[in-house]
Amino acid sequence: MARLDAIERLVMLLAKLPGIGKKTAGRLAYHILDSDRTYAQALAGELSRLHDSLSRCSVCGVWTETEPCPVCADESRDKASLCVVERAQDVRIIEEAREFRGRFHVLGGLIAPLEGVNPGDLSIGKLVGRVKTEGITEVILALNPTLEGDTTSLYVQKQLEGSGAVVTRLASGLPVGGDLEYADRLTLSRSFRSRVKF
Amino acid sequence: MARLDAIERLVMLLAKLPGIGKKTAGRLAYHILDSDRTYAQALAGELSRLHDSLSRCSVCGVWTETEPCPVCADESRDKASLCVVERAQDVRIIEEAREFRGRFHVLGGLIAPLEGVNPGDLSIGKLVGRVKTEGITEVILALNPTLEGDTTSLYVQKQLEGSGAVVTRLASGLPVGGDLEYADRLTLSRSFRSRVKF
Repeated sequence: MARLDAIERLVMLLAKLPGIGKKTAGRLAYHILDSDRTYAQALAGELSRLHDSLSRCSVCGVWTETEPCPVCADESRDKASLCVVERAQDVRIIEEAREFRGRFHVLGGLIAPLEGVNPGDLSIGKLVGRVKTEGITEVILALNPTLEGDTTSLYVQKQLEGSGAVVTRLASGLPVGGDLEYADRLTLSRSFRSRVKF
Repeated sequence: MARLDAIERLVMLLAKLPGIGKKTAGRLAYHILDSDRTYAQALAGELSRLHDSLSRCSVCGVWTETEPCPVCADESRDKASLCVVERAQDVRIIEEAREFRGRFHVLGGLIAPLEGVNPGDLSIGKLVGRVKTEGITEVILALNPTLEGDTTSLYVQKQLEGSGAVVTRLASGLPVGGDLEYADRLTLSRSFRSRVKF
């Protein structure tokens, strides 16, 4: 059969998304085709306007429709506490936990020399500047507990030495609701070393 | 943080796709945002044109840009052999296997009285008409080997009695490259009953 161009083109585009293979892309394409056309139109509309409606907040670096972003503009947030994250989407995840009431700083990546990402490629200089000028007393490093995340945390911590701010990082350990049996060796070791008094 | 409307709206729409939860939708939305804007524009374009570029083939029922569809219009295909499938996307899957060289008929569903799908809702009358008028000598039922698929196959086979066409269905058994250990009981039973001479 000659390929159905419109479907195939959609499948090819969907298959470029992370975690979506060609089979899943096909399933999604036919689902969209079998759904009401208003759905496809709504999705098309959001996608076409996406990059125009959003830009990076000039202060913290998250994607925002307003400048500065709602968090940076919110006077009720704790200005003394700054949470450093790798990517803009990490802010959304942390906000959903409703635990942290300070503000954010997006690094834009993690140090990974093998992949060509050096400290200069990240928003670290700007972070140091913010800590000095905004009266920040605590910097919480909320980077992934991976090799790159730990390397970056260490580097950032060194850069902030002498700034007067306390630098902390998120606790590593067993996930709540998890099972000892399924914890990997490193997580288990770290949860022993970081054990807390009962 | 006040929600970023443009991202949230995109996440909500993506989360309506089958197999895409809210977390995955968030990951996809940020991936699209971090990608080149031409990708979002291309995807938006395909989605907005999708329902206008495609319609059901009046002969077999697949989604097509031309009328009749390329398979029905292809004079080199075997006109005597008709493969009956549940959904339009099954045609694509079968075409990719490059085994069948006849034509197709899309039923548009499977008989499922509990879900309100009765034989009258499917394209069965039209199938019987095609078999009578198009000189079809073999009807291959390529429906999923499930309760609904088997019920529908049985019903269609009864309707085609006396049409002169041989009615066959796809073999059930162990998947190629599979493992006896992981085969379910029903598949194993059926592969015993349908065993073939070596």
